[in-house]
Amino acid sequence: MMKLLQNKINEDGIVLSDTVLKVDSFLNHQIDPQLMYEIGKEFAERFRKEGITKILTIESSGIAPSVMAGLQLNVPVIFARKRKSLTLINELYSSTVYSFTKQESNEISISKKYLNDEDCVLIIDDFLANGQAAIGLADIAKQANAKIAGFGIVIEKGFQDGGKNLRADGYRVESLAIVSSLENGEVIFAQDQMKELGQ
Amino acid sequence: MMKLLQNKINEDGIVLSDTVLKVDSFLNHQIDPQLMYEIGKEFAERFRKEGITKILTIESSGIAPSVMAGLQLNVPVIFARKRKSLTLINELYSSTVYSFTKQESNEISISKKYLNDEDCVLIIDDFLANGQAAIGLADIAKQANAKIAGFGIVIEKGFQDGGKNLRADGYRVESLAIVSSLENGEVIFAQDQMKELGQ
Repeated sequence: MMKLLQNKINEDGIVLSDTVLKVDSFLNHQIDPQLMYEIGKEFAERFRKEGITKILTIESSGIAPSVMAGLQLNVPVIFARKRKSLTLINELYSSTVYSFTKQESNEISISKKYLNDEDCVLIIDDFLANGQAAIGLADIAKQANAKIAGFGIVIEKGFQDGGKNLRADGYRVESLAIVSSLENGEVIFAQDQMKELGQ
Repeated sequence: MMKLLQNKINEDGIVLSDTVLKVDSFLNHQIDPQLMYEIGKEFAERFRKEGITKILTIESSGIAPSVMAGLQLNVPVIFARKRKSLTLINELYSSTVYSFTKQESNEISISKKYLNDEDCVLIIDDFLANGQAAIGLADIAKQANAKIAGFGIVIEKGFQDGGKNLRADGYRVESLAIVSSLENGEVIFAQDQMKELGQ
């Protein structure tokens, strides 16, 4: 668990409901570049030995942490674009991602030019909840026959199934903060919960 | 003019027509983080004495250069979101931006929480062509009564009117590459043209 990030969530995160944590003061509307640099550094350290050749993410909130990780791993970042529907399908790898928050489906896509079977990708995103975006990005990497080294997640909602399912599928998932509960307006991190239970 | 960027455009830019330069291999689909770092450094150097408190940009392609400039100026970045229509208008500064490329209008908006009359903003974007996005971002800064220190543009299309109009309005516009022509499939930079004319 990344202490700096956990402190930032405690200070500036806003619990909107039992399932919604708003962090738009430093992650997904206003961005704290110093924090993003440290997040990028942490991802780079955790995946440095994996032979990463590309970072794959999704617009818009995945871009800042990805670019900072890419800077420190010295690899390019590709961000998938979200669109209601797609043209020029032949030139694209694409996948459909359902957002439970927005209750809508989007096509996400990347150009075939930028990913191939010689690539080893690190998939980065700001949040991991139900895992729909992560699965969509993994689907795109698979279409390109690229190797998936794992997932770098800024904030995982441990009380939703995305992380559990990805790990069950054998993927390495590195989440810098895992929120185990947002009940009663309070952010409980997985680590704290373990401490309380004496583990 | 930033030589490193100009070289990258010469090497990897694709001229699609007399008005369209595709740079999605390093700027707006695949991103070169090292280049973005140098671009951010260049913006930071040019605007370091202006007392910048916030960088304002627009999703998605403005985010990478902005975060790198924010890292080096040590200020937060706010990215305006694009939407077809807006809810929660009361909590947002918003403006309408017409895209000539896509022939559609989008509402762009930022939360009122993150910009106020004590801010001095640097507006950053990947491209400056007709200037619609830049004008929309300036409109948002004005609604917040923030001071506008100027515009940091990665690539300006000098043959379109955006930059000319902003400068005529008294704004400082710092473009790291100014393309004066894309005719005959060739990228001509403003600097080269001046050299050819013996200026």
